[in-house]
Order: sequence, then structure tokens, then C-alpha cells
Amino acid sequence: MLKAPSHQVAGHQARDGKLGPLVDELGRFYKPLQSGERGSKEVAFYENFCSNTMIPDHIRNFFPIFYGTQLLEASNGSGEHPHLVLEDLASGRVNPSIMDIKIGSRTWPTESPEDYIQKCLQKDRGSTSLPLGFRISGLQVNGSKESALWKPDKKYIKSLSVDDVRLVLRKFVSSNVSADSSVHPDCALASTVYGGSTGILAQLLELKAWFEEQTVFHFYSCSILFMYEKGSVLEGKKSNPGIKLIDFAHVLDGCGVIDHNFLGGLCSLIKFIKEIIYTPNA
Amino acid sequence: MLKAPSHQVAGHQARDGKLGPLVDELGRFYKPLQSGERGSKEVAFYENFCSNTMIPDHIRNFFPIFYGTQLLEASNGSGEHPHLVLEDLASGRVNPSIMDIKIGSRTWPTESPEDYIQKCLQKDRGSTSLPLGFRISGLQVNGSKESALWKPDKKYIKSLSVDDVRLVLRKFVSSNVSADSSVHPDCALASTVYGGSTGILAQLLELKAWFEEQTVFHFYSCSILFMYEKGSVLEGKKSNPGIKLIDFAHVLDGCGVIDHNFLGGLCSLIKFIKEIIYTPNA
Repeated sequence: MLKAPSHQVAGHQARDGKLGPLVDELGRFYKPLQSGERGSKEVAFYENFCSNTMIPDHIRNFFPIFYGTQLLEASNGSGEHPHLVLEDLASGRVNPSIMDIKIGSRTWPTESPEDYIQKCLQKDRGSTSLPLGFRISGLQVNGSKESALWKPDKKYIKSLSVDDVRLVLRKFVSSNVSADSSVHPDCALASTVYGGSTGILAQLLELKAWFEEQTVFHFYSCSILFMYEKGSVLEGKKSNPGIKLIDFAHVLDGCGVIDHNFLGGLCSLIKFIKEIIYTPNA
Repeated sequence: MLKAPSHQVAGHQARDGKLGPLVDELGRFYKPLQSGERGSKEVAFYENFCSNTMIPDHIRNFFPIFYGTQLLEASNGSGEHPHLVLEDLASGRVNPSIMDIKIGSRTWPTESPEDYIQKCLQKDRGSTSLPLGFRISGLQVNGSKESALWKPDKKYIKSLSVDDVRLVLRKFVSSNVSADSSVHPDCALASTVYGGSTGILAQLLELKAWFEEQTVFHFYSCSILFMYEKGSVLEGKKSNPGIKLIDFAHVLDGCGVIDHNFLGGLCSLIKFIKEIIYTPNA
């Protein structure tokens, strides 16, 4: 039984007769292949990544497991459509809080068609990608009660300024989250979710160390997902903080050069997270 | 007595009746203030930088000493012109080998006028700035004999591809440098100039650590100079490797965000230098 994912925060959604990803009950995520080159590039990336023996296991864990491709009835009723079969990253998580952060001040590879470059450049200049080296593409903060869900709409997400991003990164780990912007986020969960030896900062630093050395892949328009279980941590259980990389339709061969665009944005994000851990009451 | 510097490898030169920098015999470098905002911005940067007590001394050493501004007879005979009075970085060095590397895949601040952005973007796309996060703006490799000087012209510098840059970074520390491109650079000086506890890599790593944390300045279109004395090292003496940052006409307030554009390019350059140290015979 396939259905639309409950915890999708960005990207195309399988609703209202549109083409979007589906999940099953066995923890698999079915992502429709994008049209043209993008779909085939994403498949090629996963195949290449899976067979690459140079990738350390602790880095491989930051990527969804790839199970191949499969023809499936599309969510928009248009008949059979090829899908990537991936690990459902939200599977097994209880009411996860999720944030999708698109990394890099430049989301376009140099070899792209001119109209695509101009479209991306405009989005990068119109968002925090240029000033921050990353932008938030979507999020949900999920408490233990349904009423505690905070899932801002696309319009709000697209309008985020640099200061808004700083605030949202704080709200993501606060116990007093609400759409009311006058409430000062308490960052009560910062030390357990962002901090600590298994927290999000520690994971980002592992990823950074890899990006300082790896010259095989350049990731454009790729996102890092932050995930944790707020309900659990409020009940005194583990928050299971985790990061995952997703969206590989614009991955290029690194040709012996590091991905300085991704790395720069990642370092900028790390600096924000550090500041929240070290000055939660700012 | 003021004269044009002997060891300038990039930028406007005080020759043929043109406006350019001058040096005296006391180790000072007189840089004509650029027209409009650029000149005043560069003065403002130096004044701000000098009075900023948060800059550690080991980082301050990577910047030229600033002695103020002074009205001087311009090198183009146009009368008195305001000049920045700076430390002459080549002063005291014997036949220095110098490379000017402009850092960042993006050389334009977001707030620039649209025509300036388009001009810079075109240069960044047409050079290695976009693929590498940096581009070489000029260099000279100086042996002990005059005949050993290699100082490629601007046309060659502007045409450098990614592979050319890799080669030039190797030639910069080779004993068998020549304009003849069929000679394979031996990287004989890599371990003493790039490597070691006081070498260029160690200095770049110090700079990187600062850029991972500092959120005060964003450096656009700024260069790192590599300098050392090849004649000395060939005679068994010290090579005095050093790096310095120059050109601050496009420095902006960091507004609490790291300079991810500079940092990304710096990390990319570091990776190239590491590869030369670890595989000099590649």
C-alpha cells in the first residue's frame, strides 16, 4: 500500500492529482524520476555513489539507502512512471521535526543551459543563499501533541531573511515554538539536539571533514535534512538527532577539485548552529 | 625617492604615464586611492581593521601594515593624488618569487550595482574562479640569476584553465621552471616552501581557522600573495615562505555571518597545495 509521505517539508507533493513521492509501510520512499536529464542524473549519482569504495561508512550513513529503480503507478494517475526506490528517512521516527536546508550560495553547475543559470541565480540572489551560503526550503516542528505542530507555508519559507533564518534555526530546537513571532524561542533543546557527541553539530563537522578532502562529487541544489524527535526529548527520552543529504539531480563529477561551494555553505551553517549551542539565550 | 615597485605581479602599474603604486627605500608602498567609493572603502577597511581589537596578532601579520594616507605626486603626472601608505611587502626580500591569487568563486558583493555584478560574474565564469573558488592574477618566479626569471604576461594569466592552475602552482615551487610547457615541474622546493611548520600550507591553515569563526569582514575580490626567496633556498638558506592578504576595496561588514565565499575558495586552494606537498612527483 503506497501513500503520500506524512512528513514531507519541501519539494513536489503527491496531492491533488500531482506527481510526487510515495512511501510504503516497509520503510521505502518512492521518488518519481524527474523528466529529462535530471532523473537519469539522479539515478546515475546513486549508482555511482553505491559502487564507490572510497566513501567511508560514517559518510555513507548520511545518505539515503538506494534500492534501485522501479516502474510504479504515478501519484497523478498518469500511468506507470519510473521511480527511485530509496530509504524512507522518516520511517521509524515518532512525530519527527524536520528541516530541509539547501546548501551552497550557488545552486547551478557551470555547465547548465543559460536560462537555467539565470533562473537559479535569481533565486539565489532573492533568498539567503547568496548572503548565507544556504537557504531553508521547508520545515516542520512537531511536538507530542498535534496542536504543537508548526509547519510554515511555502510563502513564508520563501520570504525568509537572514535574521529570520537565525530565528528559525533557534525555533527548531525550542520548547515554546509557535507561529506567533513575538514569542522569544527558548532554545531549550539546543544542547540535546544540536550539541553533544551525537548531536547535529557533531554530524555536520564529520561531513565538513569529508568535504575538505573529497574531490569526486560536486553537489548543486542538494539539501541537508535535520531530523529529531521532539516528543521523545520532552518526555525525557532520546531525541535521535540526525542529518541526511537528499536531492542529487544536479551532482557533477568533482574532477579533482573540492566542492568549495557546498563546503562554504556548510561552514556557514555550522557557525550558526555553534552560536545557538554556545549562546542559547541570545 | 619614489619609484615603481620592482616586484609587482598584478594590478595597475606606474609605467608609461599611468597611475600606479610607488615604493620608497624605507619599505613603504604608496597605493593610489581608487576613484569613487573604492578608494574610501579601502581606507575605511584599513582604519577599521587597525582599530579592531578582536583580531589576533598572528592574523594581523597576514595583512600589510597601514601607515595612513598621504597626498603625493601621482605616477602619471596628473598632480597630487591621495595614496594609501602601506608596508612594502617585497621590501627586505631578495629576488622574491610572488604569486597573486584572487580568492572566492564570487568577486562581487550582493549590494553592487547591476552592471558591476554582470561584469564580475562574466570574469568569474570566464576564469577558474567559478570551478576552483580562486584564480591566479599574476606571478613571477625568480631564481638567483636574472635569466631564471619567469613572469608570464597578462594574456597567459587570463587564459589559465583548471589544469594550467594546477601546473602553475607546481611550477611556482620547482627548480626547473621555464616558459617551455613540455618541461615537467620537479616540485623540488615544495617541501620547504609549501610544507613544514612555517611553510605556506601551515599559514593558510591558520588563516582558514580564523575564517571559520570571524563574522566581521567579507572580503570580495581580495588576493592572497604567496612569497618566498628561491635564490636563498637554492643556496641552502631559508626560503622565508609567507602569505599576505591584499586589496580591500570590496570588503563588507560580515553582519554576523562567516565569509563562506572566501573560506570555500581558501579550502580549495589548500587542497591543491596539500596535493603538491604529498605527491610532488605526480
